Amino acid sequence: MERAFGTDLLIVGGTAAGTAAAVAARRAAPGARILLVDKGHDVAYSTCELPMYAGGQIAAEEALVRYTPDTFSGTFGVDVWTGAEVVGFAPGGRTARLADGRRVSWQRLIVAVGAHAIIPPFAEWEEGLGPGVFVLRTLSDARRIRERFTTEPPAHVVVIGAGYTGLEAAVALGQDTRVSVVAPQGRLLPSGLSEPLSRIVAERLTAGGRITIRAARATGLDRAPDGRPLAVITDDGERIGCGAVIVATGIRPSADVVAQLGLRRDDVGAIRVTSAMRTNKPHIWAAGDCAAIPEAVTGRPQWIPLAMNAFRSGRVAGRNAVFSLAPSSGRPATLSPAVAAFAVRLAGLDVAHAGLRLEMARAAGFSADSVDIVGASHSRSLGGEDVHMRLVHDTKRGVLLGAETVGPPGSALRMNTVAALIRLRATVDDLEASDTVYHPDVSPLHDPLRVAARTAQKRRS
Amino acid sequence: MERAFGTDLLIVGGTAAGTAAAVAARRAAPGARILLVDKGHDVAYSTCELPMYAGGQIAAEEALVRYTPDTFSGTFGVDVWTGAEVVGFAPGGRTARLADGRRVSWQRLIVAVGAHAIIPPFAEWEEGLGPGVFVLRTLSDARRIRERFTTEPPAHVVVIGAGYTGLEAAVALGQDTRVSVVAPQGRLLPSGLSEPLSRIVAERLTAGGRITIRAARATGLDRAPDGRPLAVITDDGERIGCGAVIVATGIRPSADVVAQLGLRRDDVGAIRVTSAMRTNKPHIWAAGDCAAIPEAVTGRPQWIPLAMNAFRSGRVAGRNAVFSLAPSSGRPATLSPAVAAFAVRLAGLDVAHAGLRLEMARAAGFSADSVDIVGASHSRSLGGEDVHMRLVHDTKRGVLLGAETVGPPGSALRMNTVAALIRLRATVDDLEASDTVYHPDVSPLHDPLRVAARTAQKRRS
Repeated sequence: MERAFGTDLLIVGGTAAGTAAAVAARRAAPGARILLVDKGHDVAYSTCELPMYAGGQIAAEEALVRYTPDTFSGTFGVDVWTGAEVVGFAPGGRTARLADGRRVSWQRLIVAVGAHAIIPPFAEWEEGLGPGVFVLRTLSDARRIRERFTTEPPAHVVVIGAGYTGLEAAVALGQDTRVSVVAPQGRLLPSGLSEPLSRIVAERLTAGGRITIRAARATGLDRAPDGRPLAVITDDGERIGCGAVIVATGIRPSADVVAQLGLRRDDVGAIRVTSAMRTNKPHIWAAGDCAAIPEAVTGRPQWIPLAMNAFRSGRVAGRNAVFSLAPSSGRPATLSPAVAAFAVRLAGLDVAHAGLRLEMARAAGFSADSVDIVGASHSRSLGGEDVHMRLVHDTKRGVLLGAETVGPPGSALRMNTVAALIRLRATVDDLEASDTVYHPDVSPLHDPLRVAARTAQKRRS
Repeated sequence: MERAFGTDLLIVGGTAAGTAAAVAARRAAPGARILLVDKGHDVAYSTCELPMYAGGQIAAEEALVRYTPDTFSGTFGVDVWTGAEVVGFAPGGRTARLADGRRVSWQRLIVAVGAHAIIPPFAEWEEGLGPGVFVLRTLSDARRIRERFTTEPPAHVVVIGAGYTGLEAAVALGQDTRVSVVAPQGRLLPSGLSEPLSRIVAERLTAGGRITIRAARATGLDRAPDGRPLAVITDDGERIGCGAVIVATGIRPSADVVAQLGLRRDDVGAIRVTSAMRTNKPHIWAAGDCAAIPEAVTGRPQWIPLAMNAFRSGRVAGRNAVFSLAPSSGRPATLSPAVAAFAVRLAGLDVAHAGLRLEMARAAGFSADSVDIVGASHSRSLGGEDVHMRLVHDTKRGVLLGAETVGPPGSALRMNTVAALIRLRATVDDLEASDTVYHPDVSPLHDPLRVAARTAQKRRS
């Protein structure tokens, strides 16, 4: 048996969290041996730019690959192995086994394996998805879609799922082809937007005529003998003919392979960690989309798979893992509780939210209420457009719990103000009393955020 | 002598503060007799849109006039007199005298006379400015400029002053004519921007070739016998030939006529008020650009002539004035201390700031420091541009004191987040730990605000 490769720190997973961990570890411990492994071919690329790359709006792959494995390794003095899938861990020991038989012995381990696309059983074909059926989660996935849509563009593509990935794919691919979006909950972005705001997004997406939204659940796939899709079957009996299918039915934490490490996980499968990103097992940290982190409004751990959380939690895990090897000056790092702050641009519309939706707030035990208002992006005499805003607050003290907005480009930044205030447990009174910039070309005298806050004040009084 | 017109509430001044006061008073006291007088011909128009109207970017006057005197009167049940200049007050009594001889006796008085343009003596001509020389403060001013630039466009106009009004006029008029801006402090926007950021604005403004900036002080005006300007003379001996002149050398509170009321004023001439907008004299409130209001960072009264403060202070004054007539349910209103939050768009660039500049913070006694960073508006692979950001903080606890930004359209909204945090006495740590939305088309993973906060943290550690 080959001797194991020895490293001080093994990081499994090389996108946002893993690379942030490696960089932070290197900075904190210049002499530590660090090995980053990833089962894919790429590291350090921007997951959030994949839809634009798949659709061709970003032309060159270099634009979204921040470092190649080689340049990352050279820049930070970190060993990088790609195509290196961890398939097991020595029970009780500190050794990982790779699919190709190699073994790595480590002093400290950071699990940053991310999340993966959920594949409904009907979409499976042999060992994978089959020709013409795609997910969009990794750079390899995006390459496959781009290759297909460039060389043999289908006349009609069905996107299964109406979450962010599905809609971004629909918009990106809908530039050149007809797209049907199958929305299982009957509306768009159910995990992020309330019904009134999601309806506005639907109107915009379908306005051009190339995107159709079908409120239905996909239940099957008709394929040609070679596996190519012929039609998507829905639970209302429709058969939607198509030349390609994008499966965008959600993601889940990729923590299966580390199950044998005995890491505690929550009900969605995310690894439970402390605010230092430490797991329940000694010498093992977790970060990124495979971990649950403290959420600011509820104070409870929550799975919030966002790039910013991946980056931040990776940085904390990296620093703390090497700090535990050789405690130096300074203190271990901690992750500040997160406010989920999300944005996307769809067909020229900013869609963004922060904190908790009304239903989430109520489920978390808050006596919560919401107000919906329509304000203006800036002076209507200079082309100002509608900004839709929902504010969620508790009814007892008016504490801000969440917000949603849909509006013209730039509207999303208003969620940063709400997120910062939510984190400080500020109230609708604070928001109403806040000062906002005003210029006819830039932002209205009565900013939609303050209009919403004032409406909430009146509702409460 | 004609009998005085009697009213419960007299409001002097009919733009932002005066109309907000009238509306708030009407809401709080449905039966009160309210009279709004203004020496001009218009009420309830948007002062901030005047440059775009003068330059023709806003075509119709209706777009910036929210109410005519008649519709305002009809909508809110308020008497409105225009062309009604208050020239005196009966000593000790509650009677105002108008220029046309009319008298008004009042129970409560709100002074909302605003601010006026400073005219350097060399620009005076007979009773006014003379032909071809303009200020830009009122709708009448904007009409005059527009009329002249439409009927007889000059080949070259000199703008005296490099503050916001001067630069907005330069950009608005510079669409069709050459403009020279005479910048007395050698740089643009000295009251709002630090030198590094003002230089970026200067580069953008002069890039098109139509606007020239001259670091000099205007000291004289050559005129033709009929008063038309021939050239502006500067202190460095230059003679800048021109067909028109815009005088934009600043504004000051218009509180002169009310001096006889014995109202206490500060060193810039702004009326001192409580947080209830009450002056030192009984039955008299003041609001808007003629008053100094509590500033949030220093806790001291400051003259912050911004539309939002005018609106807010007017609303407070209106409610409280009628509340004192007939105390009803509820409580008197108070004005929350203000954070100066300013934005302007100049030649496609957002320029904005919030709170105190470094020099102001030091002058106010803070041990203050600043950091300057350059971030991205969004993903550079999708056209993201430079966002320049300065953050001012105290060195002891890292409390946020102010910020400035210059960047592409939309950048200004970042100042809302800073302003809200400043108001809550939050620190650079709070800003760094805040969550910001990320999407390649919308905003970067590392928002310029957080990059600046992190830089400030490192500076302090």
